[in-house]
Amino acid sequence: MVCWTKLWTAYALHDSDMHTLTKEFTLIAKHFQREVGQNNVRTRRDVILGIGDDAAILNPPAESSIAVTTDTMVYGTHFDDHVPAKALGHKLVAVNISDLAAMGAEPAWLSLALTCPSIDDDWLSEFASGFFELADYYNCSLIGGDVTRGPLSLTVTAQGFVPHGKALHRCGAQPGDRIYVSGHLGDAAAAFAGQQGRLALTDIQQASLNKRLFYPTPQVALGQSLRVIATSAIDLSDGLASDLQHVLQASNVGAKIDANALPTSAVLEMAIPNQEQRVQHQLTGGEDYELCFTVPESRRGSLETVVRQLGIDVTCVGVIEGDAGLRIALNEKPLLLIEGGFSHFEG
Amino acid sequence: MVCWTKLWTAYALHDSDMHTLTKEFTLIAKHFQREVGQNNVRTRRDVILGIGDDAAILNPPAESSIAVTTDTMVYGTHFDDHVPAKALGHKLVAVNISDLAAMGAEPAWLSLALTCPSIDDDWLSEFASGFFELADYYNCSLIGGDVTRGPLSLTVTAQGFVPHGKALHRCGAQPGDRIYVSGHLGDAAAAFAGQQGRLALTDIQQASLNKRLFYPTPQVALGQSLRVIATSAIDLSDGLASDLQHVLQASNVGAKIDANALPTSAVLEMAIPNQEQRVQHQLTGGEDYELCFTVPESRRGSLETVVRQLGIDVTCVGVIEGDAGLRIALNEKPLLLIEGGFSHFEG
Repeated sequence: MVCWTKLWTAYALHDSDMHTLTKEFTLIAKHFQREVGQNNVRTRRDVILGIGDDAAILNPPAESSIAVTTDTMVYGTHFDDHVPAKALGHKLVAVNISDLAAMGAEPAWLSLALTCPSIDDDWLSEFASGFFELADYYNCSLIGGDVTRGPLSLTVTAQGFVPHGKALHRCGAQPGDRIYVSGHLGDAAAAFAGQQGRLALTDIQQASLNKRLFYPTPQVALGQSLRVIATSAIDLSDGLASDLQHVLQASNVGAKIDANALPTSAVLEMAIPNQEQRVQHQLTGGEDYELCFTVPESRRGSLETVVRQLGIDVTCVGVIEGDAGLRIALNEKPLLLIEGGFSHFEG
Repeated sequence: MVCWTKLWTAYALHDSDMHTLTKEFTLIAKHFQREVGQNNVRTRRDVILGIGDDAAILNPPAESSIAVTTDTMVYGTHFDDHVPAKALGHKLVAVNISDLAAMGAEPAWLSLALTCPSIDDDWLSEFASGFFELADYYNCSLIGGDVTRGPLSLTVTAQGFVPHGKALHRCGAQPGDRIYVSGHLGDAAAAFAGQQGRLALTDIQQASLNKRLFYPTPQVALGQSLRVIATSAIDLSDGLASDLQHVLQASNVGAKIDANALPTSAVLEMAIPNQEQRVQHQLTGGEDYELCFTVPESRRGSLETVVRQLGIDVTCVGVIEGDAGLRIALNEKPLLLIEGGFSHFEG
């Protein structure tokens, strides 16, 4: 059921103290079932029935398709105790909305499945604050979910709208199209490597890069603008080299990347001064949650107009080619990717 | 991303052998990304883009609302090694579709978040067979999801359609309405108690009751028929006493239940011959995944016609009253529920 009372089942199989259950249920409801009007909480008009029944009832807009994506974050696999609860709430929303952005969709509805070993009121409060801060920013409603007891794990299914036939796909890249990425690449992965002791960072560098790891910004406005400009798009979650391969395979094309062109933050340039190491890191690091997209030569002017209006940075990093495969050049020499991502920083 | 390649991220943080990753990814894709036409796999026309991009793209029908529900099943909390992988796949789909049935919705789309500690090909194959057997029966498409490494846990978000304004709610019960349940109550919970050694069952009884625990049948056709007959509905996941309370609270009414009327299978009657124990068990057991719904006196004839056409059993077990609270009678004497569900079978 969409209602948070599902907690009941999870606990009832093992606990006999119904009073405790009721109390814990109330606690969880307190964090996620918000009163409309309270703390500027708005409700979407398309949410006919939200949390509190067997399912939510929603009215999608006419003439639109629905985009649906699901992302899970598991303790010990995707995050650990380094990640503050508020950042986790933010990031869980961000990574899902980033997938919608890559389709050119406008985010709308979120379902949350929260599995936790015990009820930690402070942790839940922080998690919920990060979750709703970003959800509210994008005018997304939490429409329901499930709360269960078990090892800490979080799954969100996010839904958004895109006009019929206007969704961005991975499969539309054509030879000659320019390959663009938004923002800077490699900051989040550098923060992660720093936490793990695989990259030496000053405290200031670590703190600066942590912002990119913990609080990524999904490129929602850019994604929607690209509907009529880009021939393909994907969000960068696994690293440019890996994610771009999905586009190339789906589009049945190849690509050439100029590693000298990769957009790089000043912090990352200081943190990894060796250019080849830095570029390897940027290409394989992951967790950027920027968009990678392809644009035909004829629409580069439209793209420039759009990014100026949005006030964001995009960088051309390569070109789509007819020959299959991904070719990367650094200082005009072929660059071979070192497999295993971060491992080249070890030792 | 909706694509199963999300596995990549999960593994990339800890593994360095990309070849192993690719192989494992292919293995998982094999089980869930089915070829249309193969093994009679159909695709829904409203699924414009399924597994394989950042999000699925779906076209909901005009004039319909979307019903959305999420249910998680966690190893050690909701199931253990007693539950065959095929049953788990079936049940995961069933419990989600049961929530849609309780709203009067027609099921359509499923998203699956699968977290598992390792890739067990046999287990995945069995799980997928149970999952798709029921999904195919209801013409539901798996539109995407996420596969991650971690403690075994499964979350489905199910979506269905219901004509505008026709969804069944928990909040519509009126004094004088009759309270109905479909099927038999208590079989699944008896199977669970038998497994745990809290209830003595013969092997034949255990096997018979296990079918109800492992392979529940969501009441989809009944739910849709009730749109114009019932004033409220809920699915029975936590036990009649607990689930009906949600209806009473949402509708701001009370109820009287005649425990002598509870529909009981022959197996359960033999397994728990003591009437009061059996009734306690039926009221608090849970896992029935039948529907509980309320019908005004004036529509009881319509209900009888519908259930005859559908060939299913429904039983009137009580009546809605104006006074708040749930009153239960057994042999015309008040029955107090023993808190803690199964615990009265202990020792």
